[in-house]
Amino acid sequence: MSKEAIGMVGLGRMGANMARRLHRGGARVVAYNRHPEKAQALAKETGMEAAASLADLVQHLPHPRVVWLMLPAGAATAEHVQELLPLLAPGDLLVNGANAFYADSMNEAKDVEARGIHYVDAGVSGGVWGLQEGYALMVGGKKEAVALVEPFLKILAPASDRGWLHCGPVGSGHFVKMVHNGIEYGMMQALAEGFAILRGKEEFGLDLAKISEMWRYGSVVRSWLLDLTAATLAQDQELQDIAPIVADSGEGLWTAQAALAQKVPAPVITLALQMRWASQGRDDYAAKLLAMMRNRFGGHAVEKEH
Amino acid sequence: MSKEAIGMVGLGRMGANMARRLHRGGARVVAYNRHPEKAQALAKETGMEAAASLADLVQHLPHPRVVWLMLPAGAATAEHVQELLPLLAPGDLLVNGANAFYADSMNEAKDVEARGIHYVDAGVSGGVWGLQEGYALMVGGKKEAVALVEPFLKILAPASDRGWLHCGPVGSGHFVKMVHNGIEYGMMQALAEGFAILRGKEEFGLDLAKISEMWRYGSVVRSWLLDLTAATLAQDQELQDIAPIVADSGEGLWTAQAALAQKVPAPVITLALQMRWASQGRDDYAAKLLAMMRNRFGGHAVEKEH
Amino acid sequence: MSKEAIGMVGLGRMGANMARRLHRGGARVVAYNRHPEKAQALAKETGMEAAASLADLVQHLPHPRVVWLMLPAGAATAEHVQELLPLLAPGDLLVNGANAFYADSMNEAKDVEARGIHYVDAGVSGGVWGLQEGYALMVGGKKEAVALVEPFLKILAPASDRGWLHCGPVGSGHFVKMVHNGIEYGMMQALAEGFAILRGKEEFGLDLAKISEMWRYGSVVRSWLLDLTAATLAQDQELQDIAPIVADSGEGLWTAQAALAQKVPAPVITLALQMRWASQGRDDYAAKLLAMMRNRFGGHAVEKEH
Amino acid sequence: MSKEAIGMVGLGRMGANMARRLHRGGARVVAYNRHPEKAQALAKETGMEAAASLADLVQHLPHPRVVWLMLPAGAATAEHVQELLPLLAPGDLLVNGANAFYADSMNEAKDVEARGIHYVDAGVSGGVWGLQEGYALMVGGKKEAVALVEPFLKILAPASDRGWLHCGPVGSGHFVKMVHNGIEYGMMQALAEGFAILRGKEEFGLDLAKISEMWRYGSVVRSWLLDLTAATLAQDQELQDIAPIVADSGEGLWTAQAALAQKVPAPVITLALQMRWASQGRDDYAAKLLAMMRNRFGGHAVEKEH
Repeated sequence: MSKEAIGMVGLGRMGANMARRLHRGGARVVAYNRHPEKAQALAKETGMEAAASLADLVQHLPHPRVVWLMLPAGAATAEHVQELLPLLAPGDLLVNGANAFYADSMNEAKDVEARGIHYVDAGVSGGVWGLQEGYALMVGGKKEAVALVEPFLKILAPASDRGWLHCGPVGSGHFVKMVHNGIEYGMMQALAEGFAILRGKEEFGLDLAKISEMWRYGSVVRSWLLDLTAATLAQDQELQDIAPIVADSGEGLWTAQAALAQKVPAPVITLALQMRWASQGRDDYAAKLLAMMRNRFGGHAVEKEH
Repeated sequence: MSKEAIGMVGLGRMGANMARRLHRGGARVVAYNRHPEKAQALAKETGMEAAASLADLVQHLPHPRVVWLMLPAGAATAEHVQELLPLLAPGDLLVNGANAFYADSMNEAKDVEARGIHYVDAGVSGGVWGLQEGYALMVGGKKEAVALVEPFLKILAPASDRGWLHCGPVGSGHFVKMVHNGIEYGMMQALAEGFAILRGKEEFGLDLAKISEMWRYGSVVRSWLLDLTAATLAQDQELQDIAPIVADSGEGLWTAQAALAQKVPAPVITLALQMRWASQGRDDYAAKLLAMMRNRFGGHAVEKEH
Repeated sequence: MSKEAIGMVGLGRMGANMARRLHRGGARVVAYNRHPEKAQALAKETGMEAAASLADLVQHLPHPRVVWLMLPAGAATAEHVQELLPLLAPGDLLVNGANAFYADSMNEAKDVEARGIHYVDAGVSGGVWGLQEGYALMVGGKKEAVALVEPFLKILAPASDRGWLHCGPVGSGHFVKMVHNGIEYGMMQALAEGFAILRGKEEFGLDLAKISEMWRYGSVVRSWLLDLTAATLAQDQELQDIAPIVADSGEGLWTAQAALAQKVPAPVITLALQMRWASQGRDDYAAKLLAMMRNRFGGHAVEKEH
Repeated sequence: MSKEAIGMVGLGRMGANMARRLHRGGARVVAYNRHPEKAQALAKETGMEAAASLADLVQHLPHPRVVWLMLPAGAATAEHVQELLPLLAPGDLLVNGANAFYADSMNEAKDVEARGIHYVDAGVSGGVWGLQEGYALMVGGKKEAVALVEPFLKILAPASDRGWLHCGPVGSGHFVKMVHNGIEYGMMQALAEGFAILRGKEEFGLDLAKISEMWRYGSVVRSWLLDLTAATLAQDQELQDIAPIVADSGEGLWTAQAALAQKVPAPVITLALQMRWASQGRDDYAAKLLAMMRNRFGGHAVEKEH
């Protein structure tokens, strides 16, 4: 591959590692972050170029430019898109690689494409392991738009011909990534419930670390999530210092919402999300009311908050 | 009705009120409690008789004797049954009115009936309101056994011809009561979730007390549980002092177990139970493991216990 | 009460009965239906007035006019609102009594109020029993708007001071009705599961009709839904001719969506909805895929569609 | 390894393949099946020995004998154990490799060990792929009992030091396997729901085969179950000929029961089981009753069975 150039906007955990993988894979990467010292540090570490501003980034890139936005939240992406649009030229490409609700990406694409600029929504999976193992990439957009980013997908993915897919029209990349995360919620919950049951069988004195490690070979539940669980349990299976609070990032919620909108039952994915919310105390009011109802009809004692 | 006699064993919240309702309804009640002062106090209050011991109780009653056990837990009932058996004569009747697992009652009946003594399992619903409004009574046993207790069922129930039922053979009384409570778990959870959603709609500033009161008339969800909810919310709808912990008494668990044994899906009843357990922290290990998995694959921060 | 006048638009099952209850309660009712023969038939039956057109309806009513829309679906309401707006004058009132998504009602109100016409959203519960027993009415809107419809709420409700509530601003009436129906889904599912478990205990030979009737008195689960269940089971407890398909009307879905939007766990309400969808075959694709997965890993036989 | 000998009783799908893997791995295998022609066919195919009867099998094996029972259901295992006990000598070992409820295995062990014969319960995962890829093996029993079977575990597992574990005392092997399968139910359901949502998004025209294949590389949900799903979808993603009925084998039920017995919430595993039951029509009575309730309160039409 000739030295293709890409601008990477956003150098957080995901963006910085993706820039590193692209650079190592032979791409010419121009890195930009709102805090310029982040880009400079990454440039120093790797030898890639750093841009001091979005205008600077755009000037560094040959036409048609490929700019990959890897920003945390919807608002940040929208701001950067607005800043970039006047700087780009027709035929350039914006890739939104953030976790975004697919319908928002479809609206964003309309704005961008109205100026003749290409748009691709990219769902990126792989987390902190992607740098080393490659990312799973789900992209949506027009054929000619995806063609511009394809060389970079081949580097980012675990192999040039696997782990990335042009799923369909704009929005479909984020939609497929969203469902991927929904499945992830359900799988994680199933694993966590299983280990809780193993742990609850106290008379057997089971070693959860050894069990999870053993299951990695030959079992039906072998999976990357099990690998991570085994790594966690190998370090500590008591988890005494860990608070029983599970955060959620939005993708599980969007999946549950998409299932409702389609009238497709997704009870396990939805419930996995609701159990996370319960762990966050979001069912506290219902629980208080239930405690009071029991008190009303049965005279059962109610615990007071202290 | 001629003055029929019954011995009431166990004078806790339920037993004492049932004794009162029987006495007021014209029955001759002999009250007994392991702590004799309780029986004496009740006798003083009401004019009913107090027995100083189980032997004393049995001597007070004409043959065929009717002895109603209203004791909190399985163990207490079993002990009292063992003590009573040598004191009773063939043709007498033991009624187990406690919340008990129906299969345990079926075993207990075998022991009792082997001595020629009748046995009836009675599920009693109505809680603290039963004294005034009457109890719903579900009894299981042979026809001749139930006939002995029928006069008392007619007094305990809201009306002589309603609110009590000879459900079937021994065990069926406690089985029907068990399912009743399982339904109760599901209904309560549905109500609690609904009020939590109303409360969550902050921009409408809804008055949950007024809404629950209004629903009591003409709505599809009007119910005794709604009446109690309305009474609770009328006093306090913030519930700030109440801990978000919902106890469970065993009947919900037994219902979920019975459904599993039958391979009948009871997802809402089962989940209502599981949500109570979650409120008790019984899902903490799963939640901790989920938090650690998220940390492993996504580098997401984990909250520490403090 | 002096003879207050109201126009009732839409004379289906709900609208016709509400018109009857208003007429019997002393209101002057002008009835309108897109099919004029329906209005004429109702006028003939009751003595109330029939309008031949919306223009005719408006002319029959004194200013400020009160027009209650009781139409089946969102689209029909929107069309009638558009037709009515040019016919009404500032200070008149439109009441939307249909099952509508509260956010849609809020948008509708903006259009209506922009013309100086008052708007109230009314959730109406009670179904086919409302004519006789009264309806539970949940209304949202400005104080002066609600004041115009209050005389009619007092007739429609089970009693003049109960069973109706001005819940809050526009949208809150439909919101509260929506949550009411969500609770209803959960309660119904809990009842249905319970009776299925009772039925599954074949060795007890339980009579579900008698059990449901007995629970109506003194039990914790006594409720209007239980009353209806008892009436159903009294007629037929085998239900052999009934297809196991449960329809859903939208309100359960909206409640589940509202809970998701608030991040409030409503697992039982949501699951009750999902079980209805499963009964409609909406989980068929997932089930087929599961059957195929089992075949893949375990060589388990797969049933073919026939 | 010296040529260690093992008797394999039961040559169904699992037993025959395990015998093959043991034979290929260098063990001396004596194969037995109630239908002797099965053992003879396997002997002919592989060169291993065939026993004509259990007595014959026992005579072929050197003391201490290792006999592995790989029979489909609990009843078959119990019969074979009763037949084998008088033929074996103290110090010999019986391995129960079937899917069995762990408490039953604990009872079985008591009978066997009372005769001085060792007992190991072995949970075996891997299905039809185990012959080639190795089985995950979870065994429970005393140290000296497990030592006797260890050489064979090392051949059966994917590698001599991975994919097998002495989990704990008798019963723990089947317990860990049971939970493994419970997790499997939850993971499968999550995957199936996700693909159903993808399929439901018709406007994107998603290719489920390509998506599942892509996810196998670099995604968070990569797993053996996903591999199988991808293989299935590659052949056919319409699944038109497949009936939407998912069987269950007992292990999911036992896991749900174990969780209930421990009072540990396992909502997702339990619900995955309940959804399978729903697919089998086990919720039909509840659905019929719900349809009738809707008819009662709302006059909604009910579909008749045809």
